[in-house]
Amino acid sequence: MPRRLSRRQPKGEQLHQILVQYVEGLEPGTPLPSERVLADRFRVARMTVRTEIDRLVRAGLVTRRHGQGTFVAEPKLVQSDVLVSFSQDMRTRGLTPGSRLLSVGVEPALEAESKLLALPADAPVVRIVRVRTADGTPFAVERASLPSERFPGLEDADFDGGASLYELLERRYDARPHTAEQRVSAVLPDPEEAPLLGVPASQPCFRIEGVTRDEAGEILAFGQSLYRGDRYDVVMHLVRDESGADAQGSVTRARK
Amino acid sequence: MPRRLSRRQPKGEQLHQILVQYVEGLEPGTPLPSERVLADRFRVARMTVRTEIDRLVRAGLVTRRHGQGTFVAEPKLVQSDVLVSFSQDMRTRGLTPGSRLLSVGVEPALEAESKLLALPADAPVVRIVRVRTADGTPFAVERASLPSERFPGLEDADFDGGASLYELLERRYDARPHTAEQRVSAVLPDPEEAPLLGVPASQPCFRIEGVTRDEAGEILAFGQSLYRGDRYDVVMHLVRDESGADAQGSVTRARK
Repeated sequence: MPRRLSRRQPKGEQLHQILVQYVEGLEPGTPLPSERVLADRFRVARMTVRTEIDRLVRAGLVTRRHGQGTFVAEPKLVQSDVLVSFSQDMRTRGLTPGSRLLSVGVEPALEAESKLLALPADAPVVRIVRVRTADGTPFAVERASLPSERFPGLEDADFDGGASLYELLERRYDARPHTAEQRVSAVLPDPEEAPLLGVPASQPCFRIEGVTRDEAGEILAFGQSLYRGDRYDVVMHLVRDESGADAQGSVTRARK
Repeated sequence: MPRRLSRRQPKGEQLHQILVQYVEGLEPGTPLPSERVLADRFRVARMTVRTEIDRLVRAGLVTRRHGQGTFVAEPKLVQSDVLVSFSQDMRTRGLTPGSRLLSVGVEPALEAESKLLALPADAPVVRIVRVRTADGTPFAVERASLPSERFPGLEDADFDGGASLYELLERRYDARPHTAEQRVSAVLPDPEEAPLLGVPASQPCFRIEGVTRDEAGEILAFGQSLYRGDRYDVVMHLVRDESGADAQGSVTRARK
């Protein structure tokens, strides 16, 4: 850390830069100096220090533990625009994927499901609800609905371990997820979801919804999941549309 | 709306489906029947109605106005993976883009900026902070930092109207934004941002950060913006990586 702050720039902003750099050089779980120590060190008001620590908390760089202080947060995982199963994704990162099965069963499709899966009304769907974990830490509540006629007996698979739904579809049903169109919303968790993820009800999360298709365009599954915003970011690669065509004018009224 | 609920499925879930379908058929701003009316109509507890309305509020389908009741929400806008300026995007949707300039100036780059823009330490950058509006409604707080030597005099442009930064870069400096890599986080707004967007401090938002490049890969700008989560969704198109290569293993420790 530098010795003192310059008088040419706002002190809060300087402190922010210093703290970000400091935190990025430390291991997750490392305690930060107390607000008092930081205020003395940089000769700023404790309120300034608190404001900047709050900002780091909101950005997910540090976490406060009640009565214990402030600690460097675990790094965030990143969802890129490459379609990959949660299990495969975690293994790639050197983490052990896991699941806790909340419910599985075959039921008549709800109206929204039959529309999205392009099924007749009341067609049977397999519904799987799981908490997905990495090294034992919950990261997401995943809900998947699949056409039961296309995937008979799927409901009997062992979803309560690290089983990958995608791998199962491929191995047992010769169905290969190829593309997904996902709508991502920033939301608060529903009251029953927060404890499943181990986050407070005030923690912003990603709601990610959409259908998965195989290479021929057949719809394999509809998913609706909630990812922890404190442990997950989404990365997008945007490219200019050189055709000059209006690639997104049609979704202005889109809702979930 | 159907007359009554079936006894075969959970009442809350049925009510949810009914309300979603009902709301999707109505114009924004339409008032919903009161909780009491809905409870009587479907013979469920008022608590069940309230729980399901809460869920619609969190999903952004309806909004509560204090002392007035619940109303169908404005539709959300969608950011797709096509790189387009905010102004152009809004015009495509038939909305009038606008800006409110909060600050603009040339300053020595902060450490993070010089790293991201690939500039020497303390190189001058143009910093532009604006509230972006569509038909007068604030949608985002946009912060952009650009290398001043590449864009001399940029700070004198009229940013306090609907001027598009991208169009300006192209017209005046022959610099054409082509790709952007964006990291999207789900966060709460900073205390000074919430009033700028006209949202409560508890409204989940998207923090979107990244650099924009031209076709040759030269970095043109670093952006750090906050989009309202109640008026904005993000859409992603995921495609399986057929090369079998690990396309995202390198970002496991990525932080903002």
